[in-house]
Amino acid sequence: MKKFKQLGLIGCGMMGGSFAKALRRAGLVERIVGYSKSPTNTEHAKRLGIVDEAAASALQAVMGSDLILVAVPVSATGEVFKAFRLGLSKDSLVMDVGSTKQDVIATVEVIFGELPTHFVPAHPIAGKAGAGIEEAEVDLYTDRRVILTPTARTHEDAIAKARALWQALDTQVFTMTAAQHDGIFAAVSHLPHLLAFAYIHGIAGQADAQQFLHMAGPGFRDFTRIAGGDVDVWRDIFLANRNEILKQLAITRTSIEQMEKALQSSQSKPLRDLIEVASVVRNGWSINKSMTQHV
Amino acid sequence: MKKFKQLGLIGCGMMGGSFAKALRRAGLVERIVGYSKSPTNTEHAKRLGIVDEAAASALQAVMGSDLILVAVPVSATGEVFKAFRLGLSKDSLVMDVGSTKQDVIATVEVIFGELPTHFVPAHPIAGKAGAGIEEAEVDLYTDRRVILTPTARTHEDAIAKARALWQALDTQVFTMTAAQHDGIFAAVSHLPHLLAFAYIHGIAGQADAQQFLHMAGPGFRDFTRIAGGDVDVWRDIFLANRNEILKQLAITRTSIEQMEKALQSSQSKPLRDLIEVASVVRNGWSINKSMTQHV
Repeated sequence: MKKFKQLGLIGCGMMGGSFAKALRRAGLVERIVGYSKSPTNTEHAKRLGIVDEAAASALQAVMGSDLILVAVPVSATGEVFKAFRLGLSKDSLVMDVGSTKQDVIATVEVIFGELPTHFVPAHPIAGKAGAGIEEAEVDLYTDRRVILTPTARTHEDAIAKARALWQALDTQVFTMTAAQHDGIFAAVSHLPHLLAFAYIHGIAGQADAQQFLHMAGPGFRDFTRIAGGDVDVWRDIFLANRNEILKQLAITRTSIEQMEKALQSSQSKPLRDLIEVASVVRNGWSINKSMTQHV
Repeated sequence: MKKFKQLGLIGCGMMGGSFAKALRRAGLVERIVGYSKSPTNTEHAKRLGIVDEAAASALQAVMGSDLILVAVPVSATGEVFKAFRLGLSKDSLVMDVGSTKQDVIATVEVIFGELPTHFVPAHPIAGKAGAGIEEAEVDLYTDRRVILTPTARTHEDAIAKARALWQALDTQVFTMTAAQHDGIFAAVSHLPHLLAFAYIHGIAGQADAQQFLHMAGPGFRDFTRIAGGDVDVWRDIFLANRNEILKQLAITRTSIEQMEKALQSSQSKPLRDLIEVASVVRNGWSINKSMTQHV
């Protein structure tokens, strides 16, 4: 694909830095201008050679860039789009990397009035423990999946460019609506996190908590692993995707209440039927038939 | 410790067969008489040399045995105790291996009127995939934990004998009340299973289930692993320990509702506080500080 003249990297952290490294290695960019809220981060990115120039503002990083990647915490999306809005040339490809998509699109729409035609919301399904530019890895996205959620206003050539770019970084690209994306991840990732957090919170609040934790084993370990997730990241995801998560929670709650009713009245049959559905579905599922890199 | 003259093994399956093998290897028994509901199983156990004699009834297996192990599904406990009640000599050590204890004790009490003074309810925390005598392993209990839940009527020497026996099989022995046992396992094992079953059941019932499962990753895999558990085993455990499980479920439900309320009203602070408690507790927990063999 055609090389980009300049990448404007908004957010010089682990996600953005990894993208910059991969783009450069693929020979897809001539120059990278980086901006972070904290000048120290931006300077650090420059010292590490991940960006060629440290911009003093998001606006400055976007001016003259034909590719812009917004890699900031979801909660900071509005602020940065507002900051660079006037510097964005209409045919520059703009992408974000947020784990939720409907909220990002709504935020950008409010700021721009009409959504930019070359804005392609993206969710690369990749991550690692730790944050900060020093955690950036050239292969963070290699062999991972990237989900693009273009809107009705997104130009075909912007979608084609975004797809070609991510494919050139050796990722598998999926396209779906933002609603589909948010619904899927509310179901398979966000709700399980909510349930694991709630379960541990319930255990921790009990007088016997220490005794419980002392006796807990492998089943507990695996079921609760995701409850160790980053506090702010998950608060933001929950708030950003609240509608879809609440929808999924209502569905799980119905199943929980069916089990509770069966237990309260010691009804063996409905209890067994529900367990059987779950056991059969879970034993029929394999991550190999699924994505292996979602974190 | 003193060798037992005869083990009466009620239930020639994976759990009971493994106990028989281990007891024999430890040189703690002269003779093993086995009984299973299905004569084929009992004969199979004899052919494999795990039992010396195949009894035609539970009563026959118990007559003349100074050690009796009941290793049948929790739901069959009453039936077998009733069957051998009249053949039991009062100073024979009787143990079961059920995952729940209050219900077993209540069942036996109903059958015997007064609990046998040499009945020591036991829960060896060990298991493996698969059932049946051919799955029996001499080391199934080695280095595992065994929880004894004697009652007020249990004689001290019966408890001492049971403890010495399990220690001779290289297990770590804990003693607690049946109520403590059932409360602990409702919290760290039974409730997580219930939540995982309910979650998968909720996913499976949706039109988009296949799409969800296709996009699910490692977080989903670990959170739901226990939802693949055996249907009848878990139905029995849930019914047997329903009161403790319902108590724990009510506590988790309160935490879930706190998160739901915070989401509905987009309240960042209470949401973050709850996630933080869970994340800190989970990251501070390690299975190495805990039992490593609970399955």
